Amino acid sequence: MIITLTTDFGTDRGYVGAMKGVIKSINSEASIIDISHTVTPHDILEGSLTIAEAAPFFPRGTIHTVVIDPGVGSEREGIIITTERQVYVGPNNGIFDLVLKQAGDFEAMRIIDSQYLLPRLSETFHGRDVFAPVAAFLSLGIPPDELAEPLSEVIGLQFLQPTIAPHIIEGAVIAIDRFGNLISNISIDDIDRLPDGPPTIRIGGDRIYGLVSTYSEVQPGEPAAMIGSGGMLEVAVNRGRAADSLGIGRGSRIVIEAYAGD
Amino acid sequence: MIITLTTDFGTDRGYVGAMKGVIKSINSEASIIDISHTVTPHDILEGSLTIAEAAPFFPRGTIHTVVIDPGVGSEREGIIITTERQVYVGPNNGIFDLVLKQAGDFEAMRIIDSQYLLPRLSETFHGRDVFAPVAAFLSLGIPPDELAEPLSEVIGLQFLQPTIAPHIIEGAVIAIDRFGNLISNISIDDIDRLPDGPPTIRIGGDRIYGLVSTYSEVQPGEPAAMIGSGGMLEVAVNRGRAADSLGIGRGSRIVIEAYAGD
Amino acid sequence: MIITLTTDFGTDRGYVGAMKGVIKSINSEASIIDISHTVTPHDILEGSLTIAEAAPFFPRGTIHTVVIDPGVGSEREGIIITTERQVYVGPNNGIFDLVLKQAGDFEAMRIIDSQYLLPRLSETFHGRDVFAPVAAFLSLGIPPDELAEPLSEVIGLQFLQPTIAPHIIEGAVIAIDRFGNLISNISIDDIDRLPDGPPTIRIGGDRIYGLVSTYSEVQPGEPAAMIGSGGMLEVAVNRGRAADSLGIGRGSRIVIEAYAGD
Repeated sequence: MIITLTTDFGTDRGYVGAMKGVIKSINSEASIIDISHTVTPHDILEGSLTIAEAAPFFPRGTIHTVVIDPGVGSEREGIIITTERQVYVGPNNGIFDLVLKQAGDFEAMRIIDSQYLLPRLSETFHGRDVFAPVAAFLSLGIPPDELAEPLSEVIGLQFLQPTIAPHIIEGAVIAIDRFGNLISNISIDDIDRLPDGPPTIRIGGDRIYGLVSTYSEVQPGEPAAMIGSGGMLEVAVNRGRAADSLGIGRGSRIVIEAYAGD
Repeated sequence: MIITLTTDFGTDRGYVGAMKGVIKSINSEASIIDISHTVTPHDILEGSLTIAEAAPFFPRGTIHTVVIDPGVGSEREGIIITTERQVYVGPNNGIFDLVLKQAGDFEAMRIIDSQYLLPRLSETFHGRDVFAPVAAFLSLGIPPDELAEPLSEVIGLQFLQPTIAPHIIEGAVIAIDRFGNLISNISIDDIDRLPDGPPTIRIGGDRIYGLVSTYSEVQPGEPAAMIGSGGMLEVAVNRGRAADSLGIGRGSRIVIEAYAGD
Repeated sequence: MIITLTTDFGTDRGYVGAMKGVIKSINSEASIIDISHTVTPHDILEGSLTIAEAAPFFPRGTIHTVVIDPGVGSEREGIIITTERQVYVGPNNGIFDLVLKQAGDFEAMRIIDSQYLLPRLSETFHGRDVFAPVAAFLSLGIPPDELAEPLSEVIGLQFLQPTIAPHIIEGAVIAIDRFGNLISNISIDDIDRLPDGPPTIRIGGDRIYGLVSTYSEVQPGEPAAMIGSGGMLEVAVNRGRAADSLGIGRGSRIVIEAYAGD
């Protein structure tokens, strides 16, 4: 049984190691897979994007443990979400918003205090004391309703939505990756609703005409717009860093518009 | 059988990969778990804290390989330490000091040159040529005394101890984590020996009154003192970075004092 | 069956996680081992050094997936290389040059479009859509010729070669590791062809006399030259950072000369 880990803990310290130890102590057969431990600290949006990029490719039954948790120790709930194919464990703070948009139907439950959790050494480390043991017991086949109870609402990432009008979508750069590529909050589904003429993308003072399917369709150093690997509109510069050469930071406005072809 | 790895090698190069290859070549069934490869280079204290935070949560019989090794190539010894529950392999330079304080009784042996080690390609990479094969052969059930001989002394981290007086403990910030939290060398056991009145913590020019069990008991932006996930006194700022907002660096003085309640 | 991963994707996002998910979805028994995901973006030379340092230590039959791929989406080919002991999967861009120099005989094939690849969500993520599934199907025993066809030429890293004269070799610093050690492109084989007198190494304005087998043969703070763990001439400073104290960057000239002993 696969348990994945996505956190903002970094690996400079023993926090992630402690989670792995807890999981292996409960289920020595669990196959632990690191997705990321370098999500920007407390960045729920970046974490939600990270798990959404990776989770769909895992086999049926995979348990994804995601701990980007600025509200740890407050009243925020811990949740178990079961989709048709996979299971998600983590805080109820919006972190699963993108992955659930992809997954379709799901059932969400609120983690309750039980003998399955670790005796609390600390109120500040639910990754180790709550989410790791819950994931490990789920991987052993303990049913969710022994660990959790019905939940009213899964918190969403409301601020993420682009503004959609008939010919134009106005969104924002929500992430910049290691290659300087700019990832927007405009999805391929949003773009499919635009008229079918060639789109124009505006970002900073630049205009990009049309979408390409690969960077190398433009000259080295030139910007290009495409649907990225996560299904979102991205702007990249062939063999360069779009963030640097276009002078664009996170939160910057990005617009795509199109008119019916003729 | 689980073998964990904690090093300061980073992963920009193939050093950690080479260790994993050596282990898998000797014991293909070994389950290799990364704890950290981003300990600050040559920082024995940070490494000792990292393994102490993670090791207690691993199952009985886990073999922890820890290589923060500024003295590699000198006369420093390699050691195998067996505690009641687990096994530790690495240099005899203080790296296991904290973990052994938690573990209680242990037996330590000095690794000897033997046919179990790799033929030396390099005097500077004992992680690959000595510690990885020793861990792997131990995981196969080779007894420690085929790999090692009795050792007189396990080197400690002497400089770590806080100064303890009846009403006051004077310690130091020994680590700053990714969230800017300040971790001290004052343990929960030290604090338990103070009188039972509410403690005052002094750090930099600030005073913090009382210990909380979670950051969120104080207002966002306010500092709080608590016992952290590793059992040490920590200072954090709710939804902020204590290191930055208090202007505190590693090595800074931290004092906790208390008087009998009334 | 072991599948290793070496990429420049970083782990800030879900790219590496997606590759792992693809592999586990195809072969749930695959043992996935991370070598590095922090190769400098698009740095083929650094990537080739990383895999060359690690691969020789893995067991027979290991499949190494290496994706440093600045030409993704262009006409560059994907390749499967089979050596006597191991298998390599990645782009045909020089990344395997160093590892093949160590491995001796090999057979190389060009990956073809087939039902074994993922339906393309993106032209820019062959790590997930091409190389991960190819590695996973190879690990299931699918023969390379179902996935690939004969290839004319494996691209090399031509610029890597030092200039070799009877008494002198002139090379360059090709990498600087996390400890500030300077790794050159001069191999132990090159040096073995020099006359057997004690060599002099010149780098920046400094001269280093003779090779040591370990840093600690020189005083703390002093530079030393040695054959590093990857079999290449390195310059290090005992308990210091050679890059900083000698003021040397990547690409700097390094010369070793020797004359017959007397």
